[in-house]
Amino acid sequence: MSYQAPVDDILLALRTAGDAAGTAGEGTVRGLDDETLRAVLEEAGKFASEELAPLNKAGDRSPSRWVDGRVLTPPGWKAAYDAFRTAGWSALPCPEEFGGQELPETVAMAACEMWNSANLSFGLCPLLTQGAIDALRAGGSDELKQRYLPRMVSGEWTGTMNLTEPHAGSDLSVIKTRAERASDGTYRLFGTKIFITYGDHDLTDNIVHLVLARLPDAPEGTRGISLFLVPKRLVNADGSLGAENDAVCAGLEHKLGIHGSPTAVMKFGEKDGAIGYLIGEENRGLNTMFIMMNAARLAVGIQGVAVAERATQHAVSYARERLQGRSTTSKAPGMVPIAEHPDVRRTLLTMKALTRAARTICYATAAEIDKSHHAETEHERRTAADRAALLTPVAKAFATDIGCEVASMGVQVHGGMGFIEETGAAQFYRDARILPIYEGTNGIQAIDLVTRKLPLGGGQLIKDMIEEFETVARRAKTVNRQEIGRMGQRLASTVVAFAEATSWMVEAIEHTPNLALAGATPYLRLFGLAAGGHYLAKGALLGLEEGGPHAAESVAVARFFAENISVAAPGLSAIVTSGGHAVIGVTPETAPV
Amino acid sequence: MSYQAPVDDILLALRTAGDAAGTAGEGTVRGLDDETLRAVLEEAGKFASEELAPLNKAGDRSPSRWVDGRVLTPPGWKAAYDAFRTAGWSALPCPEEFGGQELPETVAMAACEMWNSANLSFGLCPLLTQGAIDALRAGGSDELKQRYLPRMVSGEWTGTMNLTEPHAGSDLSVIKTRAERASDGTYRLFGTKIFITYGDHDLTDNIVHLVLARLPDAPEGTRGISLFLVPKRLVNADGSLGAENDAVCAGLEHKLGIHGSPTAVMKFGEKDGAIGYLIGEENRGLNTMFIMMNAARLAVGIQGVAVAERATQHAVSYARERLQGRSTTSKAPGMVPIAEHPDVRRTLLTMKALTRAARTICYATAAEIDKSHHAETEHERRTAADRAALLTPVAKAFATDIGCEVASMGVQVHGGMGFIEETGAAQFYRDARILPIYEGTNGIQAIDLVTRKLPLGGGQLIKDMIEEFETVARRAKTVNRQEIGRMGQRLASTVVAFAEATSWMVEAIEHTPNLALAGATPYLRLFGLAAGGHYLAKGALLGLEEGGPHAAESVAVARFFAENISVAAPGLSAIVTSGGHAVIGVTPETAPV
Repeated sequence: MSYQAPVDDILLALRTAGDAAGTAGEGTVRGLDDETLRAVLEEAGKFASEELAPLNKAGDRSPSRWVDGRVLTPPGWKAAYDAFRTAGWSALPCPEEFGGQELPETVAMAACEMWNSANLSFGLCPLLTQGAIDALRAGGSDELKQRYLPRMVSGEWTGTMNLTEPHAGSDLSVIKTRAERASDGTYRLFGTKIFITYGDHDLTDNIVHLVLARLPDAPEGTRGISLFLVPKRLVNADGSLGAENDAVCAGLEHKLGIHGSPTAVMKFGEKDGAIGYLIGEENRGLNTMFIMMNAARLAVGIQGVAVAERATQHAVSYARERLQGRSTTSKAPGMVPIAEHPDVRRTLLTMKALTRAARTICYATAAEIDKSHHAETEHERRTAADRAALLTPVAKAFATDIGCEVASMGVQVHGGMGFIEETGAAQFYRDARILPIYEGTNGIQAIDLVTRKLPLGGGQLIKDMIEEFETVARRAKTVNRQEIGRMGQRLASTVVAFAEATSWMVEAIEHTPNLALAGATPYLRLFGLAAGGHYLAKGALLGLEEGGPHAAESVAVARFFAENISVAAPGLSAIVTSGGHAVIGVTPETAPV
Repeated sequence: MSYQAPVDDILLALRTAGDAAGTAGEGTVRGLDDETLRAVLEEAGKFASEELAPLNKAGDRSPSRWVDGRVLTPPGWKAAYDAFRTAGWSALPCPEEFGGQELPETVAMAACEMWNSANLSFGLCPLLTQGAIDALRAGGSDELKQRYLPRMVSGEWTGTMNLTEPHAGSDLSVIKTRAERASDGTYRLFGTKIFITYGDHDLTDNIVHLVLARLPDAPEGTRGISLFLVPKRLVNADGSLGAENDAVCAGLEHKLGIHGSPTAVMKFGEKDGAIGYLIGEENRGLNTMFIMMNAARLAVGIQGVAVAERATQHAVSYARERLQGRSTTSKAPGMVPIAEHPDVRRTLLTMKALTRAARTICYATAAEIDKSHHAETEHERRTAADRAALLTPVAKAFATDIGCEVASMGVQVHGGMGFIEETGAAQFYRDARILPIYEGTNGIQAIDLVTRKLPLGGGQLIKDMIEEFETVARRAKTVNRQEIGRMGQRLASTVVAFAEATSWMVEAIEHTPNLALAGATPYLRLFGLAAGGHYLAKGALLGLEEGGPHAAESVAVARFFAENISVAAPGLSAIVTSGGHAVIGVTPETAPV
């Protein structure tokens, strides 16, 4: 089997994450006992490995195509999509009111990880539909919700996000797509959007585009952007499909990776204007869009975990089979699997440890989202929402950065075969590369983290988190077990470095914002190392207490992470706190870039 | 122009490298005054940017093809190759005796960088021909040399290296290609070789294959491997071309990158056996092949520098033109080039600093090679050869690792456009990925460094080098100039960390070899940071003393490297000296991989 869902490791990550967030009691995720939870995950894993994984290579080799103004997805895509929605997988976290299963965000993210490990190009379609559902739920009128949500929740229709224009990527304030008010309360849209994932396809009868546009009398900048629902085909009052809307796909991009996923150029209003329906208030569209983007950012972080997991499985499996070189520990004749060579083993462990660390951060974020909906007190819900907001840029950027790094290591483990497309390792390397870019580049995430997220709760939020990290590090230091090596000490130094960089950053963002911005990316990396090390250590401590079949492995991975990866923390702290002058402190004449 | 040869920076790197090695006096490279040297480099740069760079994208889009058993190179390739050899560029470092120009290795490497920056797929052809020339010079009989070398030096024929077989990649001891003695003193070869770069093509009338094979009575393992010259077409005594040899290309690989460069499966002896001529002694072929491989390893390091330079130029140029977001330093209205945003500037500086650091290491290695040929005393020549041997794995692995990292950052700077193939950044990302793999994976380089190179000269060699690093760090610390920031202090801590890890490694390789092997890769990275920081600082100190138009930039880059990159050194030292137990110190039952 080319992909084996890592159910045990996901359960451990959910448990340490949930525990951290207080959403779960002993080994449960809200409303689900251990057995049901495992059953759901195993079923999802089975679907992912049996139905989606086998299509992954075909999607790469036979990309989605634009033919006569329509997009055809790769062979097998449509049948897989039908099976996906028939099995009810589109509806996991949606409210029952609209036909969903109302499962926790954590469980939805675990399933999302599996779809994307199996087939990143396929996984993008439900991922974006979920984002569109969230935005519509948050800002849509009751009529819009009733008309569109049930069919999106069931997967009968898919959703898209139309933000980017050629001159407006990271900076949405300058979008030009125009929306004019029609006499019947609807709008007519005119403009071109690019990089629209699943902007057109043949999987469903209709597509629900969410589109950012500007009204003629809108104020300049981000305070003059409105959000519209623009269906590919109009929907009659009785729910039946009406005429084609004036919204067409004008072509697909030729991309480095995720070839199965169609990336469309969308033209709105080539004729009389695309009919659109306002979501939320005029000129307040960006607020609603950000709801959607935040959920999508976490899901993209999950994609990073997903591709890293897949690349790791692929590499471990190759390294266990490929015989090359002699054993370095015994005099036995004959070649040994390359996984036995210490240098290859270091690479495989690095892949595994980075993947798991990123997973814990993403699931901790999801757990906070759950808590923000369901915790008992308003104060708890508010705090959880803030923690989710704080963790989201770290989840997105750290997990997608390591997604690329791990995929690259995966190529390396395969040696020359890794560079040959047939082997499959190269596809992960190509596919992964979009993840640090879309849904806000990782640079944007870092800036968001230091400018908007660190100050949340007057700075108390991050202080509390650091205290939690310290508590676990202290506990780890007192554990007297040979198998954790120096994990406790290394963890403790990591937290010290993180705390130091955080104090500096909180000050800098107030007083020397340019220096703070220059340090944002290494600060985010440091955050990821501290948080990842923390959650892995929690899992290891649990394992040491409880034993069980996977305890030894979780201890070994947590120890490896602390001793070989997060040990970079003091260096990163030095970069954050004193590297910025070399970035910005040069006059224009001496600036090397 | 899509590529601008960085002549000034190359001259500075040659100067600091040459100075370090003692090959050059004040600003000269052996036998060339400054003016001549600059003229040669500018001419090479002109050829690279005008003739080779424009073919780079075409080579990617229209890969070399295998048609009717023959390989056709991409459109324009043949004309460019003819121009290349007509202009005399194939012959730079070869002896005058065989028609070469006998220029220093440093100059040849500078030209090699330019060909490969302009067009990595094209650059591979002369690179491997040079390797074959070196091996033939080292081990060939006079007759073989007279018959083949002049036509290889002139570029009339090209050369290949045939090592890898499907089951024998990093481990050459198990190759199966068979060589039988013929009655006339020649040999007949039978076997299949894979991953043969330019194994067939239409650029020249003949191709000179160097092939590793095993005689029927050869001892097992690496001591039973012989090296043969197997021409594609036989060569008559008068030098005219004779019949086709029994050596054919059976197909090309479908690769992640370097599509222009044909990667062949070669079949020897499908009929009566491929006629081969022994190079050197029977069963001693690996020794000669290693001569070739060492030169090729440095050249592959140069390829890493080359692709990093190209990716950096591409990204800087985009970042200066792409307008997005507001200035963070002024209230000016309107969007600014993204190069002005601190976070993007950090990325661009990281790209530039890594590229230049790797360049200095590669040129320092080349300078030692020159000195090993031309220094006055035997002792100096021997020491220089040892230093070249010590630096070669660092040059190869550090430069190709950063080649991939920089190419990935280049994609990131382009945002969504970076993922679109038309932009060109993605090609560098794909092309670069082979470099850490071929000519010995970077893991193999790291193992070579710690097991064979550190012990050279009884350990004195590395001690002397560390002392040189310390001297420069001390000098930098005493410089009281604001523009170098904390460069001196950071450099000094880097050297301390490097010295500490080196002492540990020298002990460990004797007493705990598996722990040493587990630390080899982070140790090599640390070596690269220490050496790169050292050479960049030397350039910066020169700039501070002498001024000149590029002084400010070289100071700024060296400072950035010390404060933001080599500051990772203490963390790496901790990984080397105490991370290994987590890699190997687990029982098979608890091993996570």
